[in-house]
Parts: sequence; structure tokens; C-alpha cells
Amino acid sequence: MSNIAVIAAGNMGAAVGRVLTRNGCKVLTNLDNRSEETRRRAREAGMQDASFKEIGATCDWVLSILPPSDAFAFAEKFLQESTASTRLAGTPAPVFVDCNAVNPATVHRIAGLFTDSPLKFIDAGIIGGPPHDDYTPTFYASSNDDSLLDNFVRLSKYGLKISALKGEGAGIGDASALKMSYAGITKGTTGLFTAMILAAHRSSPATADALLQELHASQPAILKRISGVVPPMVPKAYRWVGEMSEIAGFVGEGEGDIYHGLSKLYSRIERSGKDGDGHDIEVLEQFVAQAKKKV
Amino acid sequence: MSNIAVIAAGNMGAAVGRVLTRNGCKVLTNLDNRSEETRRRAREAGMQDASFKEIGATCDWVLSILPPSDAFAFAEKFLQESTASTRLAGTPAPVFVDCNAVNPATVHRIAGLFTDSPLKFIDAGIIGGPPHDDYTPTFYASSNDDSLLDNFVRLSKYGLKISALKGEGAGIGDASALKMSYAGITKGTTGLFTAMILAAHRSSPATADALLQELHASQPAILKRISGVVPPMVPKAYRWVGEMSEIAGFVGEGEGDIYHGLSKLYSRIERSGKDGDGHDIEVLEQFVAQAKKKV
Repeated sequence: MSNIAVIAAGNMGAAVGRVLTRNGCKVLTNLDNRSEETRRRAREAGMQDASFKEIGATCDWVLSILPPSDAFAFAEKFLQESTASTRLAGTPAPVFVDCNAVNPATVHRIAGLFTDSPLKFIDAGIIGGPPHDDYTPTFYASSNDDSLLDNFVRLSKYGLKISALKGEGAGIGDASALKMSYAGITKGTTGLFTAMILAAHRSSPATADALLQELHASQPAILKRISGVVPPMVPKAYRWVGEMSEIAGFVGEGEGDIYHGLSKLYSRIERSGKDGDGHDIEVLEQFVAQAKKKV
Repeated sequence: MSNIAVIAAGNMGAAVGRVLTRNGCKVLTNLDNRSEETRRRAREAGMQDASFKEIGATCDWVLSILPPSDAFAFAEKFLQESTASTRLAGTPAPVFVDCNAVNPATVHRIAGLFTDSPLKFIDAGIIGGPPHDDYTPTFYASSNDDSLLDNFVRLSKYGLKISALKGEGAGIGDASALKMSYAGITKGTTGLFTAMILAAHRSSPATADALLQELHASQPAILKRISGVVPPMVPKAYRWVGEMSEIAGFVGEGEGDIYHGLSKLYSRIERSGKDGDGHDIEVLEQFVAQAKKKV
């Protein structure tokens, strides 16, 4: 049995927490200033509210599962608030596992915070959605310390799926690089489909219709994928804006423009749904409705 | 039977010319300053060398099939050199069909050249590769003149596959918009795959390997597509640099960055093969070789 902190109890964090509590772990989280919905999610997952000091003093592992933009600030804050108590208590300090969809350069900055602290650090990236029923996403993990990494992989016995990224030149940053390159393919292609459907339709509705017909005739696998991936993207677009920016940073100057552009695209979809007239979303929905008749 | 000019006798132009000559058309082209290879291709396709004046005086149709960057200059030059003779001869002027992968804004500029001329203008976009054996690409065509468009579609009887883009708001620019949005999806997704494989590998070879394993486990259709589309892209990357820039212009400010970035990516692949050390191409080949063992 292990004491594990999961910060925060968002959709992913609470689902991970639930897997761990069901498998016998004590799971702490911090609910300061969190919404009633988050508190409810934590409660239902069997997670217990605790201060960072308590977490630092009693947990073996801290899983940071946050929006990418909060990753660095949380690591800094947790380190400040937890280390004093950890040292006072004399217990071994927890291992801090950053599971966020951040650029490897950000991970290196976060890892740097832990260099002179009693806490050890692991880079991780979660590929897949929140665990539920028979489905489990994969935590890919990398570290410059192989035995630490092996310990983390042993948490698999509590129902998580953890895969160590080892081998030639592997270390901190690689798990995040994997997450970025995977999302760059999956969420990136969804963005291209979206951008091109909207651009074709802007030219004329007949153009968008011809695009659909031609894809049906010569690229049926792509048309099928469009049907499957575009509708579930719409409510998540707001989260992908930041993730695309992280990927742009990961890719770097020049080609990184691909993902700066995709970040702007997802921001457009977010605006269409939130303050906008919903026109873009309607165009996408109509395209997919037509596509579904074909595939 | 119809007299048709096809400019130029490149891979696509000569293959289109061959289809037309085999179906009984007289096909002219212009071979001024062209290479021996182009002359050979034209000869083998049964195309005859002619001046722009002769073409203007004797052809019913002029199909412009060129690298995108040459499209405007050719239209301008052809118009200047052909119109005098057309008027002198008193024959009906040919219809000029721009079949190039250019931004609709460029097509509108080209169409503008013809406004006060005796020549009529059709916007077209060819989707697919050069025709051969049993394979025929589709010429999508749009115009503000429906009966002109219907006449062009009648050329289908000479072995071409021509589809008119009609309907709500359709007109000049739409065939090119269709070509852009289709290529933006097909060549765009190939670019994303390429960029992400290279970025993962730059992080570490183990990261690229993990990307392959994860795609195999959770996105087998994407891994299969990578195997199929990445290798044939490499020798064509140099041509896609300009096409991606045209698509960036089509999409416009902001999201157009996606395609500016893809243009830079394809330029990188071109350089890797031409003056570079071939490292990027080698990384892609190794990834695909591993992927093929899986799919």
C-alpha cells in the first residue's frame, strides 16, 4: 500500500485517484479554493483533503496533473510549502512526478527546482483520456535515475498503466517529448481537418461539399476519421489552445509555426462556442453529419 | 474532336496530353527553352510544338498545368502573345483553364487578366496524380459562367475526368479552394507526421521508438498511414514547399501559420536530401521500416 497525492482533482486527476483508492492506496489532494464540483469529484473518488505540508510529510508520491500553464507554479509552491515539514518529520521526501502536457524545456525548468531539494523528480506524460471501466491511459515516465523509474513503474500494481522510457540517450524531458509528439499528431491532424473544412466552406458551401465528395472517393479513411474526431474536439478546443502552444515551443522556431497556427485555430473554435455566433461549429457539424451518411 | 493546348509538358501535363491524343484530340504545347527530357515526354505523348500565336489561333482550350509560382506569369505572357493573332485570324478565342495549385486570390488575379480580352477563363484544380493505365485524376472546375463550365465538362469524352463545382455561391476561386483544402488535409497531415517523428527523435531515439509503440497500440490506422505516405513524400517535398505557402495564403493571417510552418518543414526535408547530410530522411526511413514490421 502506498500514500499518493494527486494534484488536482480535475477530470483526469480524480479518475486516476479513484483507480488508486480502489486498489487500496490512501490518496490525498489539496482542495484549497477549489469549486464544489471539484470537491464532489474528490469525495466520490475517495480522495482526502490535505495541506501541502501534510502531503510532503506523509506521501511517497506526488502526481502533478494540472492544466499545462499551472505546472511550473504548482511545483514551485509545493516545494516551498512541503519541504520544511518533510525535513522536520524526518520521513523520506516524496517523489514529485510531473504528468503534465508541457514542453520538455518547461519540464527541465521544473526539474531544476528539485535539484537541491530532498524531493526526487520524474518526468511523465499521460497518453489517453481519464481511466474508466476497462480503459486505462498510459503514464509514460522518464528520469535520469533508472532505479527511481523502476520504483515508479511498480505503482502499476495499483491499477495504473506505467511505461518507463529508457534506452539510448533517454532521460528527463523525453516523457514530455513523447506526449507532445503524440498529441502533435492526433490533435494536430484534427486541427488540420477543422481548418480545411472551414476554409473550404468560407470559399463556398459547394466547395465544402465537393471536398467531402472527393475525400469520400479518394480518402475514405480520412473522411471516417474526420467524422470520429471533429465532434469530440469542439468542447475540448479551449484546453488544446495551450497544449498547441507547448508543442510549438517543443518543435522550436520555424516549423513551430505549425502549432502556433493550430493554437489560433483552436482558440477560434473556443470563441465560436463561447462568445461567438457558433457559425464555425455549425459548419463543422453539418460537414460531419453529411460525412456520416457516407461512411 | 478538339484542338487543345497543354502548357507545359511536365509529368502531369504530358500525361494529360497523352490521354487527349489517344482519344483523338490534336494537342499542342510550347517547347521554347524546354529541356530534352520535356521534349521527349511531349513527343511520346503525341503533343506537337507550337508558338503561343498558333495556339491562340487554332486551339479551343488552353490548359495551364505548371508549378504554382509560374501560373500568373504564364497567363500574362500567353494573353499578350496570343490575342493579336486570334483577332487577326477571326477564329473564336480559346478558353483559358488555369489548373494550377494556386491560392484562390491568385486565381482571381489571373482571371482579372482575361476580363477585357476575347478569351474566356475557367478556374480548375487537379486532384490526384498524373493519369496512367486505369487511373485518372479529377479536374474540378468552377466559373461564373455555367454554360462555359458545361462545355468544359464535355471534354470528359476525351478521357479526362472533369467535375463542375456548381451550387450556392460557387464561382471562380472555388476549384482552387477545393484543391487547397484537399491538399491541406492530405499533404498537411503527412507534414505533421514528419515533423513529430523528427521532433521525437531529436529528444532521443527511445522517444521516437515509444511514439511508434504508442501509435501502434492506440492509433494503428495513423501508423499505417505514416508507413504509406511518408516515404513517397520525400522526393516530392521540394514541390510541396510552394504549395504549402499557397495554402497559407488561402487560409489567411493567423491560422495560415500552420501552412507557413509546413512549408518550412518541407523545405527542411528538401535540404536534407539535396545539400544536407540526409540525417532527417534516414530518421524517417528507420521509423517507417519499424512501423512496417508492425502493420
